Amino acid sequence: MALTVIGTVALDTVETPFGKLTEGLGGSATHFSAAASFFSPIGLVAVIGEDFPEKYLDFFRSRPINLEGLAKIPGRSFRWTGRYDHDMNVAHTLETQLNVLLQFNPEVPASQKKNKFVFLGNIDPKLQSKVIDQVEGKPFIAADTMNFWIDGSRPDLLEMLKRVDMLVINEGEARALAGESNLLKASRTIRNMGPKHLVIKRGEYGALAFYEDQIFNAPALPLEDIQDPTGAGDSFAGGMMGYLAKINSTSFQDIKKAIIYGSVMASFMVEKFSLDRLRRLNDAEINDRFLRFSELTHFER
Amino acid sequence: MALTVIGTVALDTVETPFGKLTEGLGGSATHFSAAASFFSPIGLVAVIGEDFPEKYLDFFRSRPINLEGLAKIPGRSFRWTGRYDHDMNVAHTLETQLNVLLQFNPEVPASQKKNKFVFLGNIDPKLQSKVIDQVEGKPFIAADTMNFWIDGSRPDLLEMLKRVDMLVINEGEARALAGESNLLKASRTIRNMGPKHLVIKRGEYGALAFYEDQIFNAPALPLEDIQDPTGAGDSFAGGMMGYLAKINSTSFQDIKKAIIYGSVMASFMVEKFSLDRLRRLNDAEINDRFLRFSELTHFER
Repeated sequence: MALTVIGTVALDTVETPFGKLTEGLGGSATHFSAAASFFSPIGLVAVIGEDFPEKYLDFFRSRPINLEGLAKIPGRSFRWTGRYDHDMNVAHTLETQLNVLLQFNPEVPASQKKNKFVFLGNIDPKLQSKVIDQVEGKPFIAADTMNFWIDGSRPDLLEMLKRVDMLVINEGEARALAGESNLLKASRTIRNMGPKHLVIKRGEYGALAFYEDQIFNAPALPLEDIQDPTGAGDSFAGGMMGYLAKINSTSFQDIKKAIIYGSVMASFMVEKFSLDRLRRLNDAEINDRFLRFSELTHFER
Repeated sequence: MALTVIGTVALDTVETPFGKLTEGLGGSATHFSAAASFFSPIGLVAVIGEDFPEKYLDFFRSRPINLEGLAKIPGRSFRWTGRYDHDMNVAHTLETQLNVLLQFNPEVPASQKKNKFVFLGNIDPKLQSKVIDQVEGKPFIAADTMNFWIDGSRPDLLEMLKRVDMLVINEGEARALAGESNLLKASRTIRNMGPKHLVIKRGEYGALAFYEDQIFNAPALPLEDIQDPTGAGDSFAGGMMGYLAKINSTSFQDIKKAIIYGSVMASFMVEKFSLDRLRRLNDAEINDRFLRFSELTHFER
């Protein structure tokens, strides 16, 4: 089954204690698509400017990523500049140039409207809702968001949430959205807003998934060398949704496995700058690491 | 098999958003013994003053806890006063009255010298070493410590660490002891100091165990009502060591299960103030919660 994603395609300038990347390929939809493409074909809905480097488009073309929904419009591409210090959990944004993102009006191409899985990357909830308006059939829709929209566009966000099956956010965002510090109570409040499924990302502590009265705790793999955490959350979501699209299931049992595949993809993503680790990743490595996650948490009953 | 513990027995005054306890039964060896006593007999080595309430001694007597090593000496008992705000992960110490702890000279009674398992609770590493001097045979020795000793008594701490099999500390302490922020690297540095096993407590994120080239990630159970986090770490260690003593094993496979039993005991401990939840806890509840931990992390390979 195929998967549609809406989000940002960006030029990232990132500095970490381990190096610097200047105008590398980045953006939420980029990291998502790259990770998901190991499992499923993707329809990418995003916007770029006239200055977007052809070599980055070649990367998308080298993967099963459909670019009909990638609009190229007059102006400069979206740019993000950030820095990570020794605490690699915290991104310090130095500059955001929205550029063409200000004119973004997502259009899902006809070939991608019937995809059974849809991911609404972190973007204005009004635009997320516009995508929901365009998709056909009854796809499984997951969404991401951030504090900027939770604080500044709450009514739009709540409208959007009524229409999605799953929300994927980090711990602080979950607390802010619910107005509740206890995660168990927050998870109920959020699921009452619409999404039956809630996945909470906890960075180096893994992830929690809530569905009905069930909870799943996914570990993170302790990693020796993290070069660039940018895109960890998006590649997590990409691996998860890509796997669900591949097996065409949304059972909680399969969502658990999908979360582990998402964790696997995030663990690779952070090992190198930009998408460099994913460029030379293969299925055997993905499956090996899936087994390492399994060993990490296994104990005899 | 029986288990010896050295640590503090205290009168705790604790305030949390959910209530206040005045001069309740507390201390690292108290929480440890209470949790461990559900699995194994314990020999408690600690000190109290003349003012120590008889009813608290009756609690110890109601459990399989041998009190020959609990010295009662002239003076007032050790007292700790603390407060937790909404972030229940952070204890704010308001007052510490060492009192009789200043004269503490631990003596392991003859009946407890041959116990096969020993836990050195968080206390001056010189005293921890004195206990190692007194035990006989080749027991499995685990130790706790804290930043106060890591920063202020490093040479004594390093002497003690050479002689123990396992160190049980929290994440920040592990980073401080190793002088290294990456936990994987820190775990190797610490294990080169002596202990073959390292268990890192991560509060609401669970625990990590390191042994040779293996890692185990234990989850924490998301809890709805945490009334008083005091003693969570000590009851974790107590459940873990109590289970190991019960089954008389130190294989990594069994240490993983023991860590889950430790997590189970910590999850009960925090539900009420002081030891109140443990006073009415039974084995069926412990086993039920063990299964909940298992469900929390299980996924199909």
